[in-house]
Amino acid sequence: MSKFKSLKEECYEANMQLPELGLVIFTFGNVSAVDRSEGLFAIKPSGVPYKDLKPEDIVIVDFDNNVLEGSMRPSSDTKTHALLYKTWDHIGGVCHTHSTYAVAWAQAGVSIPIFGTTHADHLTQDIPCTVILPDEMIEGDYEHETGNLILDTFASEGLSPEEVEMILVQNHGPFTWGKSAEKAVYNSAVLEELAKMSSITLQINPGTSRIKQTLKDKHFYRKHGANAYYGQ
Amino acid sequence: MSKFKSLKEECYEANMQLPELGLVIFTFGNVSAVDRSEGLFAIKPSGVPYKDLKPEDIVIVDFDNNVLEGSMRPSSDTKTHALLYKTWDHIGGVCHTHSTYAVAWAQAGVSIPIFGTTHADHLTQDIPCTVILPDEMIEGDYEHETGNLILDTFASEGLSPEEVEMILVQNHGPFTWGKSAEKAVYNSAVLEELAKMSSITLQINPGTSRIKQTLKDKHFYRKHGANAYYGQ
Amino acid sequence: MSKFKSLKEECYEANMQLPELGLVIFTFGNVSAVDRSEGLFAIKPSGVPYKDLKPEDIVIVDFDNNVLEGSMRPSSDTKTHALLYKTWDHIGGVCHTHSTYAVAWAQAGVSIPIFGTTHADHLTQDIPCTVILPDEMIEGDYEHETGNLILDTFASEGLSPEEVEMILVQNHGPFTWGKSAEKAVYNSAVLEELAKMSSITLQINPGTSRIKQTLKDKHFYRKHGANAYYGQ
Amino acid sequence: MSKFKSLKEECYEANMQLPELGLVIFTFGNVSAVDRSEGLFAIKPSGVPYKDLKPEDIVIVDFDNNVLEGSMRPSSDTKTHALLYKTWDHIGGVCHTHSTYAVAWAQAGVSIPIFGTTHADHLTQDIPCTVILPDEMIEGDYEHETGNLILDTFASEGLSPEEVEMILVQNHGPFTWGKSAEKAVYNSAVLEELAKMSSITLQINPGTSRIKQTLKDKHFYRKHGANAYYGQ
Repeated sequence: MSKFKSLKEECYEANMQLPELGLVIFTFGNVSAVDRSEGLFAIKPSGVPYKDLKPEDIVIVDFDNNVLEGSMRPSSDTKTHALLYKTWDHIGGVCHTHSTYAVAWAQAGVSIPIFGTTHADHLTQDIPCTVILPDEMIEGDYEHETGNLILDTFASEGLSPEEVEMILVQNHGPFTWGKSAEKAVYNSAVLEELAKMSSITLQINPGTSRIKQTLKDKHFYRKHGANAYYGQ
Repeated sequence: MSKFKSLKEECYEANMQLPELGLVIFTFGNVSAVDRSEGLFAIKPSGVPYKDLKPEDIVIVDFDNNVLEGSMRPSSDTKTHALLYKTWDHIGGVCHTHSTYAVAWAQAGVSIPIFGTTHADHLTQDIPCTVILPDEMIEGDYEHETGNLILDTFASEGLSPEEVEMILVQNHGPFTWGKSAEKAVYNSAVLEELAKMSSITLQINPGTSRIKQTLKDKHFYRKHGANAYYGQ
Repeated sequence: MSKFKSLKEECYEANMQLPELGLVIFTFGNVSAVDRSEGLFAIKPSGVPYKDLKPEDIVIVDFDNNVLEGSMRPSSDTKTHALLYKTWDHIGGVCHTHSTYAVAWAQAGVSIPIFGTTHADHLTQDIPCTVILPDEMIEGDYEHETGNLILDTFASEGLSPEEVEMILVQNHGPFTWGKSAEKAVYNSAVLEELAKMSSITLQINPGTSRIKQTLKDKHFYRKHGANAYYGQ
Repeated sequence: MSKFKSLKEECYEANMQLPELGLVIFTFGNVSAVDRSEGLFAIKPSGVPYKDLKPEDIVIVDFDNNVLEGSMRPSSDTKTHALLYKTWDHIGGVCHTHSTYAVAWAQAGVSIPIFGTTHADHLTQDIPCTVILPDEMIEGDYEHETGNLILDTFASEGLSPEEVEMILVQNHGPFTWGKSAEKAVYNSAVLEELAKMSSITLQINPGTSRIKQTLKDKHFYRKHGANAYYGQ
């Protein structure tokens, strides 16, 4: 029996939430779950439809993209996951989908404005949209460079990956992360909902202003940090 | 056994209708149910996902926000519910959600215009959208002030909470109420449907006029008041 | 046992298709089924939620709105159904809903343009939207006048109720009919789909032209009339 | 027992995926599956609702539209399928639906712009929309001419049916194909998703640019061709 059985199951369960939450069809997504003590992660195999996926199909990979266990090829986006794990040592899971509204914003090339408390309950910034990779990086080590693009966007915009757990890669789609694979999936669902709410908001009132500072801080800090009083 | 068992079950059942009606994901809502003779209400615990909620998790609180029974912290919006119960002595249930289209209108900061009979079957006014709380109230007793904001909007616009059982809190989302928790949830579902219909109406015809007085009165009063002839 | 048992069951089954097809929530619709030989029809009782409806709740009414059997009050829209049955002697069922996109067009006060073959498979005209009733008719025998409004729209626009089996009552919503209650419900589902397709079409291309004569005739007459070759 | 039993079952299973994937209501679609060695294909019978369809209802037809087996009339679109099979000898299945967003683009008469990687994962072109058939072809052998219209569009735009497995027939709706009936259905679901994403993208940012060459090539060729590294 695999020594990674429980990690694989965690990864499998998180992956299977994607079709249940309406975030993917066919093979349009992938989730990974990390084991920090072993320095490796479990990830969905490439191109396997969710309806056929089994726990034993999950692939084990280290942070330098070496496959440690598994008879299948890991997700084509593995190098993006690996670089995020390697660089951000607090994250426990990464999720990538092609969910409809989040992709629409990524295609439009626009960061999702923070219009309300649903957004501020989760982060106090617009949901960032990256620039487009230069040609040489696309033609080079593309999935690794996509990881760098995410890291560079956070660095240049002064964002914290502990406070902002989601990004739109322009022309592509959303990547999210969190303290666990389950939380990464939760963030993908939240992002899709915020993306939908914001597009409808703009249809109703194209001149909508962002939520003001006090209100967004109130909502974020009642759920996060030392003075949080939301939850149990 | 709790003396509040049946009130808790009523509250639990009403809460569980929210995910079934597609009005919430994860923890994005809360419903309460009042016991007027005892001067207290039952409310969802804070931050508990709907999929994990059990009847015994429901918390009993009085109108001054004292927890009377329950091992969990009540909803972070409890003070808003309490103030509405304390002030409007005819209401039996309160519901708050982050349903998609209602939130979009709240974010857009626009009252939902009364465009048709689906709306007039339920109320004869636009669905009001509040102003935004001043900073000192957000930084002060925020959830209590949100209750005051709702009350003030009704007072300043001359609205009756018996005729208008719903409101949008700007940048936040909908609150609804009714003679029971079940009716409050019903009103949240109606509000979401009206919000969706109205946004599509404006997309089709940005210059759409409101429904005329006679037609909205006809529909409202065939369902409500002394001369109603709708229903059994 | 009721002598109308099978008519009631036909009416019940047709009504229960409405929530299944996503066309109604709660009590937002009603379907009737006629018995031409007896000169009467079966209709949903007023204000009964679909989740609680039982076959024995269905009410039997004649074309002058007299209740012949049933312990419940018939739908508040009964007089509209009755007048359509009385005037158009070929129809076997009538359906009324508040489905989302059809209501949006009715609220916008715009006939649904015939943009494609999905529409032309069912009718060769725009889906008509009525004018608004004058105040005295709203304040008078409203539901009977709504029937007259539908009849007058067909007369003034020279439409045939055998070829056009659907209409939008302005500010209200859709009424559909057909050779049976089941066909009337089918037409409500088709209308909702056409309403959705058309609103998205206009969002993509506000200057979209109607489908040309030859193409709409081709699609309509391959399904209807003497030379039809669609179906079995 | 029919010698075409397994072909009929393949065709039946592919057809039944359409309602499951939300791509059709009632009778709004048809799928066929080819047997190249026998020079014939299996196709849905005309006008049979998906809820009533059985494997033995499937009709066997040759490439000149002669019915070889089956007690029912084949789909009214059979001649379009036949011409595609006859001309493009690599395809194994054809699918036609009236899915909502794809029809909206077809009605708008606009090719779907390639805005992102979800699109480029499947094809490197805009999804083509045909012109409208001239009257004499509509009034002539319409379904055969619809096949010619698809072939002519591919020829005049220099498209390869092996790289572009989908098209919008203007004012009508989508046709897709693939190496199997199942793949043709997959392509219909992908097309509907791309159609929805693109319409929302344009609502958010009407000035959205197409994805650049390097990025679309990267995504297409990591999934297709000699250097593909996606999948197993």
